[in-house]
Amino acid sequence: MHNKSTHFKQIDPLFHPRSIAVVGESSSGKIGPGFLEAHINQGFSGNLYAINPKGQVKNYETYPTLAEVPGPVDHVVISVRAEFLKQVIEDCVKKKVRSAAMFTSGFREWEGEKGAEKEAEILAMAQKGGLRLIGPNCMGFYCPDSGLSYRADMPTIKEGKISIISQSGGVAMTPVYAAAEKGIGFAKSISYGNEVDLGAVDFLLYLAEDPDTQVICMYIEGTRQGEALRNAMKKAASAKPLLVIKGGRTDSGSRAVVSHTGAMAGSHRMWEAVCRQTGAMLVDDIGEMLDVAKLALFSKKPAGRRMGIVSVSGGLGVMFTDLFTLNGFEVPKFNESLRNDLKQWVDLPGTSIRNPLDMATAFFSMGTHPQLFARLGQADNLDILVVVLAMEYLGSGNMPGGEVTNYFLHVLADSFDKVKKPLVVIFPETTKAKDRLDMERFLISRGYPVFSDVARCAKALNHVLDHSPQEA
Amino acid sequence: MHNKSTHFKQIDPLFHPRSIAVVGESSSGKIGPGFLEAHINQGFSGNLYAINPKGQVKNYETYPTLAEVPGPVDHVVISVRAEFLKQVIEDCVKKKVRSAAMFTSGFREWEGEKGAEKEAEILAMAQKGGLRLIGPNCMGFYCPDSGLSYRADMPTIKEGKISIISQSGGVAMTPVYAAAEKGIGFAKSISYGNEVDLGAVDFLLYLAEDPDTQVICMYIEGTRQGEALRNAMKKAASAKPLLVIKGGRTDSGSRAVVSHTGAMAGSHRMWEAVCRQTGAMLVDDIGEMLDVAKLALFSKKPAGRRMGIVSVSGGLGVMFTDLFTLNGFEVPKFNESLRNDLKQWVDLPGTSIRNPLDMATAFFSMGTHPQLFARLGQADNLDILVVVLAMEYLGSGNMPGGEVTNYFLHVLADSFDKVKKPLVVIFPETTKAKDRLDMERFLISRGYPVFSDVARCAKALNHVLDHSPQEA
Repeated sequence: MHNKSTHFKQIDPLFHPRSIAVVGESSSGKIGPGFLEAHINQGFSGNLYAINPKGQVKNYETYPTLAEVPGPVDHVVISVRAEFLKQVIEDCVKKKVRSAAMFTSGFREWEGEKGAEKEAEILAMAQKGGLRLIGPNCMGFYCPDSGLSYRADMPTIKEGKISIISQSGGVAMTPVYAAAEKGIGFAKSISYGNEVDLGAVDFLLYLAEDPDTQVICMYIEGTRQGEALRNAMKKAASAKPLLVIKGGRTDSGSRAVVSHTGAMAGSHRMWEAVCRQTGAMLVDDIGEMLDVAKLALFSKKPAGRRMGIVSVSGGLGVMFTDLFTLNGFEVPKFNESLRNDLKQWVDLPGTSIRNPLDMATAFFSMGTHPQLFARLGQADNLDILVVVLAMEYLGSGNMPGGEVTNYFLHVLADSFDKVKKPLVVIFPETTKAKDRLDMERFLISRGYPVFSDVARCAKALNHVLDHSPQEA
Repeated sequence: MHNKSTHFKQIDPLFHPRSIAVVGESSSGKIGPGFLEAHINQGFSGNLYAINPKGQVKNYETYPTLAEVPGPVDHVVISVRAEFLKQVIEDCVKKKVRSAAMFTSGFREWEGEKGAEKEAEILAMAQKGGLRLIGPNCMGFYCPDSGLSYRADMPTIKEGKISIISQSGGVAMTPVYAAAEKGIGFAKSISYGNEVDLGAVDFLLYLAEDPDTQVICMYIEGTRQGEALRNAMKKAASAKPLLVIKGGRTDSGSRAVVSHTGAMAGSHRMWEAVCRQTGAMLVDDIGEMLDVAKLALFSKKPAGRRMGIVSVSGGLGVMFTDLFTLNGFEVPKFNESLRNDLKQWVDLPGTSIRNPLDMATAFFSMGTHPQLFARLGQADNLDILVVVLAMEYLGSGNMPGGEVTNYFLHVLADSFDKVKKPLVVIFPETTKAKDRLDMERFLISRGYPVFSDVARCAKALNHVLDHSPQEA
């Protein structure tokens, strides 16, 4: 902590409140995200209070007002209608609350200038009392390590290494759900909404220093602090990979932004330039963001674009060779020495040892995989190894390996461990999608990035290869 | 049948053999696809024989040689090593077999010119006896309606409408597995391998006339009949959508082709031109092929590119508006009259009725969905409707609709039925992937094309919109 900036020291405690009050949830209320239950399910270990003037919220320690809570309240989650927000902020200030996340919507994004004025009033009240605000029109904080959460069904994976800052509540949570499906956790998800006080700049600078965060994702629709944001992006991107989705890059998307978060979108070209200059990576959607994050977490940066492809299916090998080549990669012929060595293990009709290595039935000769992969890893004209799997060759009872799929996957992962080069797995979605998902999770748990789509894999690899971080 | 060509009348019976013999499978053999079991599992109702000189094949009527089979044999599947193939072909000719599919590999694709010579000898033998050959180096025929199959675990969906012709055995089967996972069947899958006799031209012309086939897919690495293939493609593409993957479009891919099927790949530009001139659609991979097939089966061609987007998440709505716009679609502002009508159903903070229609919590007001979708379907400045779903809004116990997800999906499908315009669903892979897959299947069973990826959806729609079939 002694190396950290003042800014970090101000923001970090907000993610570690000792006590939280949720204002505006009732037992019967089925509308709303369920902030109380969210914190219980995430294992929040501090004091958790429900604030409801209309009576007891079942299962929660309830008080009619914040003032009546006996001890201190560090953080408040506000889930009341817009017309009641001012009163709650006033109560927070009186209670000396440290921070409030406002789920409440109906301001700038709904009423434009009139909403912005209401936001300004709220900010003025908060600033007088030293209260920091998140939102309004946001989900607030998700942080599994300290038990913060904004929806009851949020993943509970601890020690995730990705964090996201998002102007949209939906886009704050969707990547967390999607990554968890593959067993990948998030350190923090921050939905900041209309950023009346704390916003993209503050959280970017914070995450740049956050030791729990290895990859920063950002979804942004617009900003009112152009220069500060650019500087924060540069600082963050020089510290760790920063992946940015810009919502409202097109005229139609920009029109949607106005009604979504009330922000001005800015031109697409400008955002492209900002990302290039700051060393951030501009990605198109959540899938691409997670693809690049996966590579950043699980793979060293390849030294170049020369790719060795190992496939069990000749046709898929040909097709994927084409697609990688069309996307800027080289699939160079294996050299003589490698081919001579490969002949020990792969030498039957149906196979080919040129690159792609079409293993055909030799794929099921598990015993020699560790040697074979170790040898491929030594090839000096290859920068990256791509292994093509397919459920129709892994999971069939009638094919060799059918009954030993799990053992086979372990052999594969052990063999991949012998490769001293970046290795990615292409595992298309074909048959037995549900079993495939379990296998994908296993391979990811062993530290290998898995992609179902070659074009997406190539795009993510290109991001990583094209990226050169700036000096801070 | 009286309208059909002589060619059709010659080929069609091959897909309806009364009896089949599989040569070269043993009870103990775990290597190989399991052709005998494949036909049983697919419900083949004719006589099925195992031919094995080394003794009884468990559970199958077995004879040492073809000659000893008591009745006629229409079709033979040959799964012997290359050196035994000639003998089996000779036996087929003596037995007056109509067609033989040769799984056997190790010819042109393995030995080059020498292998091609062996193929020529085999062809000469067959032609003398009126035997039609498929392969070698192929999987042969899959046709659920007549019980033909080449792997024990092949899907058994009847009345599928897609057919594929593939030079690669893997690429013949992978799309069938992938489509079945979504509940979509294939009419025929034809793996033709080295096409010593019957090949791409014959099967294209056949499928062009096949009443069970509504969409033709083709994976081709190379051809020795350029002009005939072009004519066949033109004929097929004028009859129904023809989707082509060209394996070996790049130098590296082309090198892979030589060892895969022994074909010459031809230049990428040439294949692009051939597809354009014949009205075929050139696609990049199996996913894209199935995406376009799905649209061809389940959606009328949109009148244009003006898109209405309905989303439950504001952020996803913005992001997808951007992506569709960047991919050539328009997302025009809803007109005044539509917006006035929409206000009846969608009018809360968090919603927006401009386009995208950001429904937010109004998404869960199921009762008014039929009216709302009917009204959207009448919008005269929209050509196509895109509905954005997301598991995190559908499947959560804590969100409205959580416990009634299945009912909700039925309401949605019923509401979609009111839309008299092409409608596609974007349903990203986020949380609960396994449940999502079941929901995707349901929506597809109701006739709605579902995509998990916007970029892929846009690409498929662009194929359909850009496509103008040629006159035959």
